Amino acid sequence: MNNLNEVTHIDNVKLSEDGKKVIIIDQTKLPNVTEYLTLGSDKDIYDAIFELKVRGAPAIGICAGYGIYVLAQTIKAETFDEFYREFVKYKDYLNSSRPTAVNLSWALNRMEEVVTANKNKTIGEILKLLGDECRAIHEEDIKMCGAISEYGLSLIKDGDGILTHCNAGPLATSRYGTALGPLFLGKERGLNFRVFADETRPLLQGARLTSYELEKAGIDVTLICDNMASIVMKNGWIQACFVGCDRIAANGDAANKIGTSGVAILAKHYGIPFYVLGPTSTIDLNCKTGEDIEIELRDPEEIRNKFYKEPMALKEVKCYNPAFDVTDHNLISGIVTEKGICYAPFEKSIKALFV
Amino acid sequence: MNNLNEVTHIDNVKLSEDGKKVIIIDQTKLPNVTEYLTLGSDKDIYDAIFELKVRGAPAIGICAGYGIYVLAQTIKAETFDEFYREFVKYKDYLNSSRPTAVNLSWALNRMEEVVTANKNKTIGEILKLLGDECRAIHEEDIKMCGAISEYGLSLIKDGDGILTHCNAGPLATSRYGTALGPLFLGKERGLNFRVFADETRPLLQGARLTSYELEKAGIDVTLICDNMASIVMKNGWIQACFVGCDRIAANGDAANKIGTSGVAILAKHYGIPFYVLGPTSTIDLNCKTGEDIEIELRDPEEIRNKFYKEPMALKEVKCYNPAFDVTDHNLISGIVTEKGICYAPFEKSIKALFV
Repeated sequence: MNNLNEVTHIDNVKLSEDGKKVIIIDQTKLPNVTEYLTLGSDKDIYDAIFELKVRGAPAIGICAGYGIYVLAQTIKAETFDEFYREFVKYKDYLNSSRPTAVNLSWALNRMEEVVTANKNKTIGEILKLLGDECRAIHEEDIKMCGAISEYGLSLIKDGDGILTHCNAGPLATSRYGTALGPLFLGKERGLNFRVFADETRPLLQGARLTSYELEKAGIDVTLICDNMASIVMKNGWIQACFVGCDRIAANGDAANKIGTSGVAILAKHYGIPFYVLGPTSTIDLNCKTGEDIEIELRDPEEIRNKFYKEPMALKEVKCYNPAFDVTDHNLISGIVTEKGICYAPFEKSIKALFV
Repeated sequence: MNNLNEVTHIDNVKLSEDGKKVIIIDQTKLPNVTEYLTLGSDKDIYDAIFELKVRGAPAIGICAGYGIYVLAQTIKAETFDEFYREFVKYKDYLNSSRPTAVNLSWALNRMEEVVTANKNKTIGEILKLLGDECRAIHEEDIKMCGAISEYGLSLIKDGDGILTHCNAGPLATSRYGTALGPLFLGKERGLNFRVFADETRPLLQGARLTSYELEKAGIDVTLICDNMASIVMKNGWIQACFVGCDRIAANGDAANKIGTSGVAILAKHYGIPFYVLGPTSTIDLNCKTGEDIEIELRDPEEIRNKFYKEPMALKEVKCYNPAFDVTDHNLISGIVTEKGICYAPFEKSIKALFV
């Protein structure tokens, strides 16, 4: 197994052999320490998501599916109603861990549907079906990432410079990834790209995870601070921007890691195509536009103090710390899904995915 | 003395009472520790500039003026030629500490002209004139910052939201500052602004210095990561961007801290005026356009490791670390100097400053 394979086939979220625990890589410890965590309680799973030990919209979905399955097995109930009431309590709790990525509620809703669709079965039978469903969510994500990688690869050519923001690689998904998928797939096929990774403040997913994954896979990667994207584009080094997404509205507005909208505006200014890559599970037709997407606000200490030897601003200084922003659909050249690439007008092309 | 006065009248660079040392605040230790350094040797002064213990284009100029004066007094020479040879050696050495800010060479050239214009005088007399000249550079900067603050203040009104990048306040200049000058001056006059300060990676001058200065002066400041400028503008919170500059070309292209060009592109996208504030000493008519401005590349460790408890990327990962970028003149709404505000076409309005 070469390094590339090790990267693309990492199991960052999985079920324990006995099916009673969720096992994840603690992404907050990377790149310095690779540590696996075993999650068994509702609080374990909630905290892992809230604290970004597991992160990336698709990975959160997979973890939530496995997580609710693990918790469902702990429910002590005599009747379906008792079981369902407890199930919904766990579901609502996990669902409250992070608001922006739709994959969290999408996966939990899928799991709930298994329960409600099988109310006439025994609890034992329902648990078995839940186990099948969460494994299916994971398997489907692997296939989706494969398809997204293929479609994404069709947009770039050997030698291209690609700029990416945050991390939408294997750690954020299952295998290959979304935004980074085409780069790994291309590498397997002998193509060489030159990738510029925004470090992605405040939590540095670009530095800690993206540059780590690409470097380990033998892909030419250069780490930059977020505010260097403009000069890198101006230097003529970027032929396309690839980013992931956490929720896409019906009109193509896309929520992704804070700073993504800025990258899109720069790309438009410099005439560089800007692509959003993600599975159709990230599309939320209930959101008509990006205005409907709730943006998670996080602890100011992440800006002021996290990772640092000492605080980098006075503690009296206010910080505004939105975890995501919304990129207007008119800044997006294409949305790459497992079913193909959507182009403008997105309202129409996105709708067509679900026919 | 209120806090506002304490901030605006800080002496971040000064001559010791006997005139034989340069005393600076070590800006790399702020905001956690306020420590003064006494610089006596050529290496002391070079390192202070190179390591950003003193930084900000005007402050570098002031420090270089005092620095070469301090060094000139240490020269042991019998003749003018001996003296001048040593003087030029020191000058070239200090001038090599940082390439982008023109104020460094501007101040050193002014000091050299004092020497060459007075070759018939005794070395003692020349030293006295050098002492006068470096003090004059400082005094003039104080006056220039005052005038820039007045002109800048005319561009904004009570209640406006202002975004700034890096630090162009009292610490970067003398008194008041350039980009921050109008905010301090406005505060003195009872106006209230709401300032958003980009933290400014990798060296965090926005977090460590700008938010510190504004907070201490009682001005409403919110710290953001650089990649949050887009969402803050989209939220409608910003009525103008104010930034400093390190070198302005004859056509109005302006080099400033890395990331400034990105802020300017975002401002244009959102229809927000973008102003560059700096003294005419920052204008370099020898540079026809921004292409002629040398951009300093700094140590990758500043991105990967500096300030952090542990490295945030694998050490094998390449980093690109330009300290500055150039903002195209067509993204600039106005250049605010001590002689007035230049508007497009800048080639003409800048030339008019020097008539």
